Amino acid sequence: MSAIKALTLDILGTVVDWRTTIIREGKALEQVRGIRVDWSQFADAWRAGYRPTLERVQRGELPWMSLDDVHRMILEELLEKFGIMELNEVEKDELNRVWHRLDPWPDAVEGIRRLRKRFIVAALSNGHLALLINLSRHVGLIWDCILSAELAKQYKPHPKVYETAASLLGLDPEQIVMVAAHPSDLKGAQAVGFKAAMVRRPLELGPQTTSESSSNFIFDWIADDLHDLADQLGVH
Amino acid sequence: MSAIKALTLDILGTVVDWRTTIIREGKALEQVRGIRVDWSQFADAWRAGYRPTLERVQRGELPWMSLDDVHRMILEELLEKFGIMELNEVEKDELNRVWHRLDPWPDAVEGIRRLRKRFIVAALSNGHLALLINLSRHVGLIWDCILSAELAKQYKPHPKVYETAASLLGLDPEQIVMVAAHPSDLKGAQAVGFKAAMVRRPLELGPQTTSESSSNFIFDWIADDLHDLADQLGVH
Repeated sequence: MSAIKALTLDILGTVVDWRTTIIREGKALEQVRGIRVDWSQFADAWRAGYRPTLERVQRGELPWMSLDDVHRMILEELLEKFGIMELNEVEKDELNRVWHRLDPWPDAVEGIRRLRKRFIVAALSNGHLALLINLSRHVGLIWDCILSAELAKQYKPHPKVYETAASLLGLDPEQIVMVAAHPSDLKGAQAVGFKAAMVRRPLELGPQTTSESSSNFIFDWIADDLHDLADQLGVH
Repeated sequence: MSAIKALTLDILGTVVDWRTTIIREGKALEQVRGIRVDWSQFADAWRAGYRPTLERVQRGELPWMSLDDVHRMILEELLEKFGIMELNEVEKDELNRVWHRLDPWPDAVEGIRRLRKRFIVAALSNGHLALLINLSRHVGLIWDCILSAELAKQYKPHPKVYETAASLLGLDPEQIVMVAAHPSDLKGAQAVGFKAAMVRRPLELGPQTTSESSSNFIFDWIADDLHDLADQLGVH
């Protein structure tokens, strides 16, 4: 335990609750513009398009792009699929920027403040730096530094993302704990030597669904939220 | 003015006072180990070796290296020059790490807190990320993000450093103000389209010397400290 120097935190789903925010902003759009769709389905479809798009980039079928561009590409498809024709370019951009102003999970700000008392705490997200800066200012999150897949020009769980993070932190992988709600992310980090802490976010995909199965993986810590993780890591 | 979105701050000399800290730690070493040298001269010689070493890297005579390695290379020469034979490897490393625990100028922490109320505020230093993280934790500096020459694998004032910073911030150069005590840094930033704010640090090189001349350059703002800059930028 004393060998641990830094924690790297996944953001989208682990620190912030994208689904609730998108549904709320969708319903606000319904009020103002009369656009009536099932915003839960819309939010879920938006997020569901994320992984396949990143994989197309990873296979070289698409060039490297920021998450703004990824989200916008998926948004265009969804607007057509859901029959939303009312939005002009400026309004589409504004909707796409919802990913810069997501709500945090209730424990996030204070949990990260506690963890920083003892460890270097860095964001490590597939989001690009500009998105993470805006999101952190919106939420009031304070980091020791913001790291991003953008710095490796690859997306998690590609090993290069974690290797780049360790190199920039000036640490050996085994001195770093990846903290995420998603087994694939944690497994990717473990593959290059990071320790792994699973933070359960059972409501990430909504009340009716279950999260990505973690039964096949072994993590060093499993926590119910960031306070629980701080407790388990001995931070008071 | 309303077009300005972010400030990028030089660190060594602009935010922290390397000279005073090195002299103090040198004198502590004198107490404990009986090493008697002129620590002012030692500090000045250490810093003076910095620019020629970076230029050797820029010319390709030396490989890219972190500022820890640059400082250590110069330190080895200085220990010989000043006749300091008493230090073992661990002690040399410890002395070299003084650059991770420098004192801030008195206005730095609060000045940056004020500037963050209105602008994205990022570090942009020739120091590598790990040094900047440690230094920021030591001082209690809070940033929106830490940027570094390390991310461009070039040192300021090479244009690539500023271009990389603008790209990562997702901003046009003219939306960013470089804030530094050194005309060469400001001039490098202006060359790629940044605005430039000179913060005077007349004591950086000690009470008997004058700073790098700024008479040949025109800056957008010239401030006596970060509070003065915040005032001039309309942050209350």
